[in-house]
Amino acid sequence: MSLIEAVRGGRSSQVLESLKTVAAQQEGLAPLAARLGDLADLVRWDMRDVEELMATLPRGTSHVHRSAHHLLDRGGKRLRPMCTALASRVGSGFSPAARDLAVSVELVHCATLLHDDVVDLGDQRRGAPSARTVYGNAASIFAGDWLLIDALRRVRGARVDGVLERLFEIIEEMIFAESVQLENRGRLDSSEDDYWFVVEGKTAALFRWAMFAGARAGGLSAGDAEGDRGPAGALEDYGRHLGVAFQLVDDLLDFAGDEAKTGKALFADLREGKMTYPLLVARDRDETVLPLLETMIESPEGEAPPAGLQQKLREALERTSALADCRALAQSHADRAAAALGGLPASRAKEALLTVAEATVHRER
Amino acid sequence: MSLIEAVRGGRSSQVLESLKTVAAQQEGLAPLAARLGDLADLVRWDMRDVEELMATLPRGTSHVHRSAHHLLDRGGKRLRPMCTALASRVGSGFSPAARDLAVSVELVHCATLLHDDVVDLGDQRRGAPSARTVYGNAASIFAGDWLLIDALRRVRGARVDGVLERLFEIIEEMIFAESVQLENRGRLDSSEDDYWFVVEGKTAALFRWAMFAGARAGGLSAGDAEGDRGPAGALEDYGRHLGVAFQLVDDLLDFAGDEAKTGKALFADLREGKMTYPLLVARDRDETVLPLLETMIESPEGEAPPAGLQQKLREALERTSALADCRALAQSHADRAAAALGGLPASRAKEALLTVAEATVHRER
Repeated sequence: MSLIEAVRGGRSSQVLESLKTVAAQQEGLAPLAARLGDLADLVRWDMRDVEELMATLPRGTSHVHRSAHHLLDRGGKRLRPMCTALASRVGSGFSPAARDLAVSVELVHCATLLHDDVVDLGDQRRGAPSARTVYGNAASIFAGDWLLIDALRRVRGARVDGVLERLFEIIEEMIFAESVQLENRGRLDSSEDDYWFVVEGKTAALFRWAMFAGARAGGLSAGDAEGDRGPAGALEDYGRHLGVAFQLVDDLLDFAGDEAKTGKALFADLREGKMTYPLLVARDRDETVLPLLETMIESPEGEAPPAGLQQKLREALERTSALADCRALAQSHADRAAAALGGLPASRAKEALLTVAEATVHRER
Repeated sequence: MSLIEAVRGGRSSQVLESLKTVAAQQEGLAPLAARLGDLADLVRWDMRDVEELMATLPRGTSHVHRSAHHLLDRGGKRLRPMCTALASRVGSGFSPAARDLAVSVELVHCATLLHDDVVDLGDQRRGAPSARTVYGNAASIFAGDWLLIDALRRVRGARVDGVLERLFEIIEEMIFAESVQLENRGRLDSSEDDYWFVVEGKTAALFRWAMFAGARAGGLSAGDAEGDRGPAGALEDYGRHLGVAFQLVDDLLDFAGDEAKTGKALFADLREGKMTYPLLVARDRDETVLPLLETMIESPEGEAPPAGLQQKLREALERTSALADCRALAQSHADRAAAALGGLPASRAKEALLTVAEATVHRER
């Protein structure tokens, strides 16, 4: 029985969309499949609430509305709002405030995707033409602005102590991480330090906030003046490591993913001149890799590198253990995410978060 | 004695930058010149505070920091923060909270300029190459995002009741106004309704907020549940009409301005396919205007329309009284701005706001 079939047995809900991310055919994952079933049972209604609330976002006729809905309607993994829901359930539960925060984190995420596609000249997103290719760059810029403001309004309206201020900090981190990524574009000699700055700011930061916001909405303490960061701090640490693991798997999928599942062409990161973790590893371990990459990014805009070069790169990634090490590092961050929860009392929500961490490493899209 | 000389007599301050906007050589403006002197005395230190606080915005080496400062360092009229300062002085005075709000309104304004230049492919801003031409579109998008978030953080930090929520509404209005303007770009048959929607949202909305925020920081009431909007409501109405007057004069300067003063090429709005108020009037009163405009916007990108066509358009604007009517309408909105203050007790700040309204109609940049 495949993992997806196991999860699907009698269950149908929005959250299954998230669970499709898990490797369905791998050996030894039957226990994970069962736990994913529990997770689905736990958050099914929460995630339906999130979708229903997102569906109330105004649908005007302007290109701004259309650009935003073009992206939102494609669905997505909704992993960030699920984190917020679960964090709130570690506390007092998924309240209306927690639901507003869960929607907000997805809207912030979508806002950054809309701006990123303009910045990166991205043509595809979630397996469809990106909003900017359908409605233009300008509408995508304004649509991103709109979703960002709408998210901030919701966070303000939720009136949960400290989460709005924290979100401002997080968004600033995201902007400067995006900026470093942009300035390193096409720089095959960019440093591992820069790579981590980008991953922490671009991916881990919003996962951190998703967890922190849910925890605070669930009434969990953010610690005291003596430096104890409380259960909200522990959940935030979980978010950080989950985000890093998520990004490392994203990097892997650029070389080893199934395009039909990821909705993204292979080598897309490389073609955009982005140095992912496996490329950094291979470059630093094998001196033939840098000249190979230099040749590959010279491919004409929009065209995949020639098959012969792709094969050479795959061989180099194999020879240097770059993919295996990337996967091992993702696993280690998933483990650290799980360890961050060590001090929290046992609960169904905590169990579900452990499941999410494990599933993230095995996701296929 | 020119107006500027009158104002300058013995006085030098940042606020003079704002006052240079006033027609210097016109007859009968000596009383206005004297009143501008009083205005300068009143707000000189407030505006210096604003500049000093804006100067503390981080100056990193990233293109995001550089794009933002490229725009901020060009100065500008700082009319919006001056409105906030004066509104606060109608109340209890220019407190640190009022100062934070004054800086925020300028940062929101600059954020929209950075995004607008990307959307409009604008090459010039404040008499210099726009940030996007120096640092690229992507950096300008992120710089706009950064200034927006920084502004919202400051507003949140000021903790003045109701101003953050109001700013979210205002920014949403701005986004959809920009969007309508964008969708009407090049549409010479666009309606006067759309024109007013854009002016209200794009220009008047932020002036409204500048006044409202200052008023609230100054402790003035925003009214009660019975629909009385209080002194903060009156000052907000002032802001709305001031904003409309400001935009109408902007429209005029596109045909009649001095490029050295405005820092903007003549016919720039027309070349961007924007139907300004004088063009709407001339088009609706004279059937030769529409075909003339159709020919003019066919000029190659970046080139001014041929001198002969420019001359024909000037004649049509003259013949249809489009410029005179635009100026009269600007004057009428300045008068309505002044009238909105009718119920407020006499004060130096109120007097200064009346001066700002009058000066706005006569500004040359």
